[in-house]
Amino acid sequence: MGAVTDDTRTHVVVIGGGFGGLYAARELARMPVRVTLVDRTNHHLFQPLLYQAATATLAPTDITAPIRYLLRDATNTTVLMAEVNSIDPVARVVHCDDGATDLAYDYLLLAAGARHSYFGHPEWESAAPGLKSIDDAIVIRQRFLGAFERAEKATSDRERDAWLTFVIVGGGPTGVELAGMFPTIARRTFERDFRHIDATRARVILVEGGARILPSFNPELAARAHRDLEELGVEIRTSTIVTGIEKGWVTIGEERIAAGTIIWAAGNVASPLGASLGVPLDRAGRVIVNPDLSVPGHPEVFVVGDQAAIPAPPDRPVPGVAPAAMQSGPHAARNIRRRMEHLPTRPFTYVNKGDMATIGRHRAIARVAGMNLVGIPAWFFWLFLHILYLAGFRNRLSVLVEWGYAFLTYQRGARLITAPRASPEGSRTPIGPW
Amino acid sequence: MGAVTDDTRTHVVVIGGGFGGLYAARELARMPVRVTLVDRTNHHLFQPLLYQAATATLAPTDITAPIRYLLRDATNTTVLMAEVNSIDPVARVVHCDDGATDLAYDYLLLAAGARHSYFGHPEWESAAPGLKSIDDAIVIRQRFLGAFERAEKATSDRERDAWLTFVIVGGGPTGVELAGMFPTIARRTFERDFRHIDATRARVILVEGGARILPSFNPELAARAHRDLEELGVEIRTSTIVTGIEKGWVTIGEERIAAGTIIWAAGNVASPLGASLGVPLDRAGRVIVNPDLSVPGHPEVFVVGDQAAIPAPPDRPVPGVAPAAMQSGPHAARNIRRRMEHLPTRPFTYVNKGDMATIGRHRAIARVAGMNLVGIPAWFFWLFLHILYLAGFRNRLSVLVEWGYAFLTYQRGARLITAPRASPEGSRTPIGPW
Repeated sequence: MGAVTDDTRTHVVVIGGGFGGLYAARELARMPVRVTLVDRTNHHLFQPLLYQAATATLAPTDITAPIRYLLRDATNTTVLMAEVNSIDPVARVVHCDDGATDLAYDYLLLAAGARHSYFGHPEWESAAPGLKSIDDAIVIRQRFLGAFERAEKATSDRERDAWLTFVIVGGGPTGVELAGMFPTIARRTFERDFRHIDATRARVILVEGGARILPSFNPELAARAHRDLEELGVEIRTSTIVTGIEKGWVTIGEERIAAGTIIWAAGNVASPLGASLGVPLDRAGRVIVNPDLSVPGHPEVFVVGDQAAIPAPPDRPVPGVAPAAMQSGPHAARNIRRRMEHLPTRPFTYVNKGDMATIGRHRAIARVAGMNLVGIPAWFFWLFLHILYLAGFRNRLSVLVEWGYAFLTYQRGARLITAPRASPEGSRTPIGPW
Repeated sequence: MGAVTDDTRTHVVVIGGGFGGLYAARELARMPVRVTLVDRTNHHLFQPLLYQAATATLAPTDITAPIRYLLRDATNTTVLMAEVNSIDPVARVVHCDDGATDLAYDYLLLAAGARHSYFGHPEWESAAPGLKSIDDAIVIRQRFLGAFERAEKATSDRERDAWLTFVIVGGGPTGVELAGMFPTIARRTFERDFRHIDATRARVILVEGGARILPSFNPELAARAHRDLEELGVEIRTSTIVTGIEKGWVTIGEERIAAGTIIWAAGNVASPLGASLGVPLDRAGRVIVNPDLSVPGHPEVFVVGDQAAIPAPPDRPVPGVAPAAMQSGPHAARNIRRRMEHLPTRPFTYVNKGDMATIGRHRAIARVAGMNLVGIPAWFFWLFLHILYLAGFRNRLSVLVEWGYAFLTYQRGARLITAPRASPEGSRTPIGPW
């Protein structure tokens, strides 16, 4: 970055343009520093609505916005689309794009998030994709819609039934929200579109290893969600472990189920970048940070969001959700300022404003201010909050149009199967020399 | 298709869900036949707006709609998402999905369209993608947006200038419409988003082998489009042949230009399916049909749209545009009915309702009823017509929101770079047996 090295301001590098990194950058924009935010994609993703993109209700462009557009008024900030390969915490350098770009930092704010984890079975990924990025959502949308296309041209009942079987592994919010959408779409949206499919034969199976779905939620709400899902026709298997996955087949204990679509929503592991700091990680690969979110031995490095294991009382752990990233990102930014001003940093405290999940078309569960909300009121509350938070005015309006349309007509606006060949010109490939 | 073989109605197979196939299917829906429409994708594409998806103004979902949704009320019609491999005109069978699905027909309506052609240089395709499908548009959007990302982190002026150079090969409507969008976006949309890019340095070069751009248009209108493009800063090189393309470089005569983005809009070749009919094709691979659109020697096979070379007076050839497909598709369907009723078929006559192309943000050229329209009036006329024809109510509303937003703010709603790994479960891959 030859163009800016003569700048003598303190340089803060932010890795990741998710909720943690973006909200930190907005805080840093008000400080006398220069900021470089690096992300491997060009967009911020509104992750709480990702399951809607995966089920063809919203378009991928509805829930994404270019990071540099969101930070266009942060004149002290440069946004770089680049792949971070490693961090050298001793030399204080971030290595990007296989050495093409190196960023020397005074402070580092690491917010690279998490990916799904297959519990030691990485070979399951191709048969059972997970849902973290917009590219993941496009793959799941393609498989979900494609399954109905395949069922329509199946030559036997057995083949057709297999294509109409959808298994979701993992009963957390992502699994529950996906499981709620599938039967609604199969039975209502596609009602008149197919000639050889009996939509009532579509099976949605939700598999959860623990004793109940939504283990992080209030038990009453989780029970209500369980009931709501069963009313929609979802088969829920709790205390059930998946022991094998291959293309078209999932094995649950002794039972082998033929399923054209298998989705993995069962576990997370933090970005491997944390490991290059050379400090202790927890079992999920998260960096175990100090109460002020800095890294032990590296007061100039902070970790936030899904990538951080943040100390908290055992009964109130900091969950891997968007609000925790929205809170921890700016908190770390403020601690950077305090450190620059030689003031003591402050410990982070997570303010849990509630949990919420949607079930199908117009039901939800929510825990707000110690109260349980269920059914349609919870769904309206969910709708209101998500529109409020959705990044960027344009998307908000566009999403409203899509939702209104989907709600009134049962139709899905984004029923597009795309499969562009991966570009040979990824962000890392040099195509010069010029 | 075991489920329907006991149906004794005449079976019409339509290959292709573009304008030709879709409009034919709508006509066939009113006839006492059963219809199978096969397409390799699940969607109909509103191709006249494809350049807007390629330039991130509209989302891919805005200009596509599921074919089976558009034909949901055509109860005599089955839509199949399948890859057609070949046609056996003697046995009257269409072979799909490598033999997994075979369709026996009484009448065949071939509307498989065209792809871009590299004039004997297929090796140019990876460096200079063309624009025919929605997947193509996603690839071009990714390269177009990615070029600015690469320019932002360039380490030399030379590299930055190369990434800010966009070469479009071919001065037909697609090339002209793309060329008009690029400078607008580079200079206005991205105005405040980048820190190291001087947007006035972005170069857009439009290369045309013939003596003028828009050779199929009225000369006065083409001249006006030429002037409009030059006012937007586009460099136009007419009577100029591209002699070499490799990643990042294009050779025009003796000149070698470093260009991060090269787009091919220069030539078309019809779907190779025409060749399996075993009848004469023209130089562009199109089936030379009889005046009634049937194939010589095969009165039960009709070819329409971009795939057909339709006999016409030399001064009024049938162009490869959407209106010609919209007219020839239903005409062939009506001739099928006449043949079933033992009536003589009717020759096809193309009614040219006008040509039109947009130039940049709010200018267009149009030829309507023998009159030339230019500038903003032409643009409004263009807008009105496209909204009118856009398939499906939802898309129409959503497109209006996007256009209004883009027009008022200069912002692009669909600035998303995606690169999902191609699914290992394409339409042809079996994943059973169940």
